[in-house]
Amino acid sequence: MPPLQNDVFLRALRREPTPYTPVWLMRQAGRYLPEYNATRAKAGSFLALAKTPSLATEVTLQPLDRFPLDAAILFSDILTVPDAMGLGLSFAEGEGPRFERPVADESSIARLEVPDMANLRYVFDAIREIKRSLAGRVPLIGFAGSPFTLACYMIEGAGSSDFATVRRMAHGRPDLLQRLVALNARAVSAYLDEQIRAGVDAVMLFDTWGGLLTTGGYLAHSLDPMRAVLSALHPAPDGRSVPAIVFTKGGGQWLDAIATCGAQCVGLDWTVDLAAARKRVGERVALQGNLDPIVLLADAATVAREAAAVVRAAGPLPGHVFNLGHGIVPATPPDNVAVLVETVHRESRALRAGH
Amino acid sequence: MPPLQNDVFLRALRREPTPYTPVWLMRQAGRYLPEYNATRAKAGSFLALAKTPSLATEVTLQPLDRFPLDAAILFSDILTVPDAMGLGLSFAEGEGPRFERPVADESSIARLEVPDMANLRYVFDAIREIKRSLAGRVPLIGFAGSPFTLACYMIEGAGSSDFATVRRMAHGRPDLLQRLVALNARAVSAYLDEQIRAGVDAVMLFDTWGGLLTTGGYLAHSLDPMRAVLSALHPAPDGRSVPAIVFTKGGGQWLDAIATCGAQCVGLDWTVDLAAARKRVGERVALQGNLDPIVLLADAATVAREAAAVVRAAGPLPGHVFNLGHGIVPATPPDNVAVLVETVHRESRALRAGH
Repeated sequence: MPPLQNDVFLRALRREPTPYTPVWLMRQAGRYLPEYNATRAKAGSFLALAKTPSLATEVTLQPLDRFPLDAAILFSDILTVPDAMGLGLSFAEGEGPRFERPVADESSIARLEVPDMANLRYVFDAIREIKRSLAGRVPLIGFAGSPFTLACYMIEGAGSSDFATVRRMAHGRPDLLQRLVALNARAVSAYLDEQIRAGVDAVMLFDTWGGLLTTGGYLAHSLDPMRAVLSALHPAPDGRSVPAIVFTKGGGQWLDAIATCGAQCVGLDWTVDLAAARKRVGERVALQGNLDPIVLLADAATVAREAAAVVRAAGPLPGHVFNLGHGIVPATPPDNVAVLVETVHRESRALRAGH
Repeated sequence: MPPLQNDVFLRALRREPTPYTPVWLMRQAGRYLPEYNATRAKAGSFLALAKTPSLATEVTLQPLDRFPLDAAILFSDILTVPDAMGLGLSFAEGEGPRFERPVADESSIARLEVPDMANLRYVFDAIREIKRSLAGRVPLIGFAGSPFTLACYMIEGAGSSDFATVRRMAHGRPDLLQRLVALNARAVSAYLDEQIRAGVDAVMLFDTWGGLLTTGGYLAHSLDPMRAVLSALHPAPDGRSVPAIVFTKGGGQWLDAIATCGAQCVGLDWTVDLAAARKRVGERVALQGNLDPIVLLADAATVAREAAAVVRAAGPLPGHVFNLGHGIVPATPPDNVAVLVETVHRESRALRAGH
């Protein structure tokens, strides 16, 4: 592998000084880009796109060809792991994910196993192909859904506005939920280990639904399993350090606890005050975020003003990765993304120069 | 009016000692009760039910006839105020609220006025009839939507998963949103003043969507207007003190700020650690909440165990009103509500006795 030409993102995750604030965007390869929609149409479906390494590579690189982003993120889905367990993932057009065989009861949880990583080979093949295509331009981020977020979809069988079934299990059968998230944690560790072996430079856990839990439920069923995932990861075969990012949507009130979970970086959603968050966590972790993705639907002047405000809120100390506070929305004009990336780079250089 | 026979709820709001913890439940008059569904069928629609004082009285009292609750809450809707402004509220069967004439642009915001309270006479008539029917059994809570939550529906014209339009306005035209929420604050003050004159014993502001804002946006567009509402309220004509409760769903990370808004009590959603919240706010305010409403879908033993845990988390000091952390869900078995109320009363008496 050629050496990285731009390691600003990795240095920020390690809280080392950088000449400017690195920026990437959750769902940067997505429906707001016409070229993404063209490739997806060619693939036939979202899942075919994710499962065809050459096409996953194509869409992973598309945003980098438009914008000077500081990291690429593997194009995939958080639900590949339960799919590999045999639950039968599909995406109906215009709808969210659906499992053909959701986890309905105690016996079906008992039967679940850490999946054979051969079932996920398309992911590792995509990583290798993306790394070859990147040729060291920027680091590549691998990722997985958090053990609890996977459990949400595995139990409900689809998306939900309130995930009532899994929340009921958290209250009525916490032992059962604990067994499921512990199994998921082992599966996610194995999955991220393979992603690291295939070449990713950093990993991220997406905890989309942990914010629906009570505080006690969050600590037991979401944060602790994420801690278990991270502590079970093996070093990369070539000795690279592979930093980890943890992102719980709606987790702002639990920031102090999240900062101790073993991740080098904590992702913040848009509701969190970034300056106050930095004061709370001190120098324990890097922070990632947290522009409201809805800002990208406004005019360019608003995008520039609000992006600069996030850079200033993060302050001049090392350890900030600029991102949105949630995934980019499909209605985003690509030109606003160009304004965003340029603003973050310019304003953060100015901040370091004392302006 | 006969004097109150049970003022435990009002004393808890004032953080005075009470023999047990008072309990009421958000949406306690609702679809989980067969008698509610029968009255609603008789009314023909949700809105007809809310706008017919005798029927609103009937459903307000139904849960009190089943369970020894410590407060009644006016049966109404948070969107009565924009309806009275002329926006044309309706509820399609099985769907949420919809406005026929949403607030689409700057000129339509400029044309809005504090509505003539005569348009809301059905609410005040219902309050007078409920108070007569209650005959002092328990206090009656009046309520309104928060200025920001009203703005969400007024701008989007209906419910939404992300309220992108109003969030975009918060970033791109904060001046315009500020004008709208300031108008709403004046309207809500006038509305609650009339409710107080009609006889309610406490008032509550429901801020269902403030949690979608950035921290800065929340303080400016949701919390400050709620503060304005409360500071503009007039004393009751008969000199009664009428305490206020403020509830922001998803507001856990802003608890310290909310505790200074002028409300005597802060409502907590189910994600907040009640014991930690008590430590944070000290003796500044009473706290209301916060059992996960999903617990009521579990078995009776789980309901009793989790309700007792909330009572213990609140601790033995005065100033706790037991409630759910969000509205009761329609699938709740009424028998579980009986278990809940009985458990709260018994466990809180035991806690005060030092057991």
